Amino acid sequence: MNYTTQMDAAKKGIVTKEMKIVAQKENISEQVLIDKIAKGTVVIPANKNHVNINPEGVGEGLRTKINVNLGISKDSYDIEREIEKVKVAIDMNVESIMDLSNYGKTAEFRRKLVDISPAMIGTVPVYDALGFYEKELKDITAKEFLDVVEKHGKDGVDFVTIHAGINKETADTFRRNPRLMNLVSRGGSLMFAWMRLNNKENPFYEYYDELLEICARYDITISLGDACRPGAIADSTDASQVKELIVLGELTKRAWAKNVQVMIEGPGHMAIDEIKANMLLEKRLCHGAPFYVLGPLVTDIAPGYDHITGAIGGAIAAASGADFLCYVTPAEHLRLPTVEDMKEGIIASKIAAHAGDIGKKLPGARKWDNQMSLARQQLDWSKMFELAIDPVKAKAYRESSKPEDEKSCSMCGKMCAVRNLNKVLNGEDINILRD
Amino acid sequence: MNYTTQMDAAKKGIVTKEMKIVAQKENISEQVLIDKIAKGTVVIPANKNHVNINPEGVGEGLRTKINVNLGISKDSYDIEREIEKVKVAIDMNVESIMDLSNYGKTAEFRRKLVDISPAMIGTVPVYDALGFYEKELKDITAKEFLDVVEKHGKDGVDFVTIHAGINKETADTFRRNPRLMNLVSRGGSLMFAWMRLNNKENPFYEYYDELLEICARYDITISLGDACRPGAIADSTDASQVKELIVLGELTKRAWAKNVQVMIEGPGHMAIDEIKANMLLEKRLCHGAPFYVLGPLVTDIAPGYDHITGAIGGAIAAASGADFLCYVTPAEHLRLPTVEDMKEGIIASKIAAHAGDIGKKLPGARKWDNQMSLARQQLDWSKMFELAIDPVKAKAYRESSKPEDEKSCSMCGKMCAVRNLNKVLNGEDINILRD
Repeated sequence: MNYTTQMDAAKKGIVTKEMKIVAQKENISEQVLIDKIAKGTVVIPANKNHVNINPEGVGEGLRTKINVNLGISKDSYDIEREIEKVKVAIDMNVESIMDLSNYGKTAEFRRKLVDISPAMIGTVPVYDALGFYEKELKDITAKEFLDVVEKHGKDGVDFVTIHAGINKETADTFRRNPRLMNLVSRGGSLMFAWMRLNNKENPFYEYYDELLEICARYDITISLGDACRPGAIADSTDASQVKELIVLGELTKRAWAKNVQVMIEGPGHMAIDEIKANMLLEKRLCHGAPFYVLGPLVTDIAPGYDHITGAIGGAIAAASGADFLCYVTPAEHLRLPTVEDMKEGIIASKIAAHAGDIGKKLPGARKWDNQMSLARQQLDWSKMFELAIDPVKAKAYRESSKPEDEKSCSMCGKMCAVRNLNKVLNGEDINILRD
Repeated sequence: MNYTTQMDAAKKGIVTKEMKIVAQKENISEQVLIDKIAKGTVVIPANKNHVNINPEGVGEGLRTKINVNLGISKDSYDIEREIEKVKVAIDMNVESIMDLSNYGKTAEFRRKLVDISPAMIGTVPVYDALGFYEKELKDITAKEFLDVVEKHGKDGVDFVTIHAGINKETADTFRRNPRLMNLVSRGGSLMFAWMRLNNKENPFYEYYDELLEICARYDITISLGDACRPGAIADSTDASQVKELIVLGELTKRAWAKNVQVMIEGPGHMAIDEIKANMLLEKRLCHGAPFYVLGPLVTDIAPGYDHITGAIGGAIAAASGADFLCYVTPAEHLRLPTVEDMKEGIIASKIAAHAGDIGKKLPGARKWDNQMSLARQQLDWSKMFELAIDPVKAKAYRESSKPEDEKSCSMCGKMCAVRNLNKVLNGEDINILRD
């Protein structure tokens, strides 16, 4: 191969096989795509060791993608069940799976996952470090943190979340600007704790160049984590969050200089009226790098329904610049998600992504909706089911409550506006009581 | 009584007992409220015959309210089950219930409903006309339509949906501007069909002054229905919808001149990027009258999940001017909702309304969120459950999956960012593997 990463290839004008696939999927020209990858506004996370990946692009002008989190942990240690979840996620055509495993035989699970998944795989190496070394957090060395990243790279991980933005300066900003919920990012809080307990600079910040070398070697995309992700709507768009974003923007440029692909991670809990401005902030401060958001959850008061609070925020975010949505399930804030929670979270995120694509006027995004509406207009139920985002659920609902008139549904029966308009516009009478 | 309607009282400077209650609930001064009612930007739907109403204001600067639809129909004729739904809706503190009954003994159900409901009651008299007269649509006379409204008024209905905007002019605009889904408003399509079949003007438009007299008599608030509500994102903000809104604005002024309170009904299916402009259009063309929206559903492709597509649109609408959200359930487009569907629809709508109130910077709206986040920060699970929008579901989720560390949850276990930050900021070590 005469290039290291997708970005290196793009800068050299080489169209990789991954770019060809992505251009085709997105229905854009290879030239448009390659320019965006060279600039850094689009990434194709595709580790050289992830052999059977079905590559996807993330970023400017592309369809909004979604990610599913899963993985083994001490409170839920069942490799088979997690593999089951992987299969469901793949069946539901998610573009990305993050393995957040943080206990026990993570390597075995991770390798299996890379092996069976055409979806891109992401990890948070810091989660894995404690179990990997069987050491308490503060005893892990900077070199050891980097070695875990290398290990994940060898295993074929396509992108890694690295909390390098919570450096001493950002931590000082956080200290001077108290928050209601402090830090709620799991990896970010671990890095902050490590820095405090060792009185040292963030190792990923201090040894960022070494990190970039590892990433370039395997073409791992760096997903720059937001340790200061707001965990309450009271904390959003505050000094800590924006300060960290400035650091992430600087780290983005350093990565690009070494041809390492970058995404930026973002909020979090955030009121509706702040979302659009946050998308702009990220695009400006991080020079157009793709934005990967968790939510945003537009209110704090709905545990059990955060797939909905997240879908509201995610749709608005996607319509105004976010490129990649991390799914949120009804189990958020309460427990590890079950397979059922996962399914609900995936559907809610897909709705948000699609609504966002329509909102950002992505060419072709309305085609699916127009086909559905035509089927509705024709009262063609089998076509409606076929086009539904969840054909099984839609069908089950209708079949549970059969209407008097086969063409209508039990909501309106013969008062169905579609039925009646079709008759009247056709010059017929409508006979609601009789026929 | 020395006034006819709440609006008449407001114009005369009389503070009614309903205004006192609403001002207190909304934590605003009586003077601010009375000015808005006099101008028409706030309504208090409260029929003089609805004795045990617990009045609510709808409109400018007030908390966003939600409505639940139910009622008996030919495909689902079970008065007891519908009364059960009423009780659940009241227990869940919805502010409004629309009785969409359209078959059989509607009067018996309606009177029972008015009797037991402290929530305001709305109806669509046209739905009831066919069964009431046992006549086909086209044979019902203009006078008979008005008589049904009067009947509902006597029974204590607080607001009625009247599709007076689909007059000959609007119908012409619709004819000249073809749509993918034609008309999907049930009542609107009935009026359109009646006009076509009889070749006459819309009776509610033609006899609007008579209608206003009936409404003034009982203080029924008119909810001006949108027959041209878009039923597909392809049809939104089109000529028919906007033309009808212009007519509704004219009808609003005529109602106000007779001291009849008015709300305007709105979309419907609508892409995210059109919602804000639609809120502005309604407020301008209808002179600041309260806006009551159904959805908007931001995509057409999710039957089975339209409580989510509706929550996305409803939250954005509420944040940018909508005052009142009609709930949407997962059963939308598929069947009449069950009690379970109703509950899911209510929660989703409440989330949208609350997120919208935060988004529109309603004073005090964030208080609930801040209390929840404080409980989270303190890992105070009983407080979190108490504050949750659905305490039962939140508790059941957590209890189904007990964590190793009682203070955390099984999502992160001892890696809980909140737990670890609290320790580290307190100068303690965090000991994830051991303690």
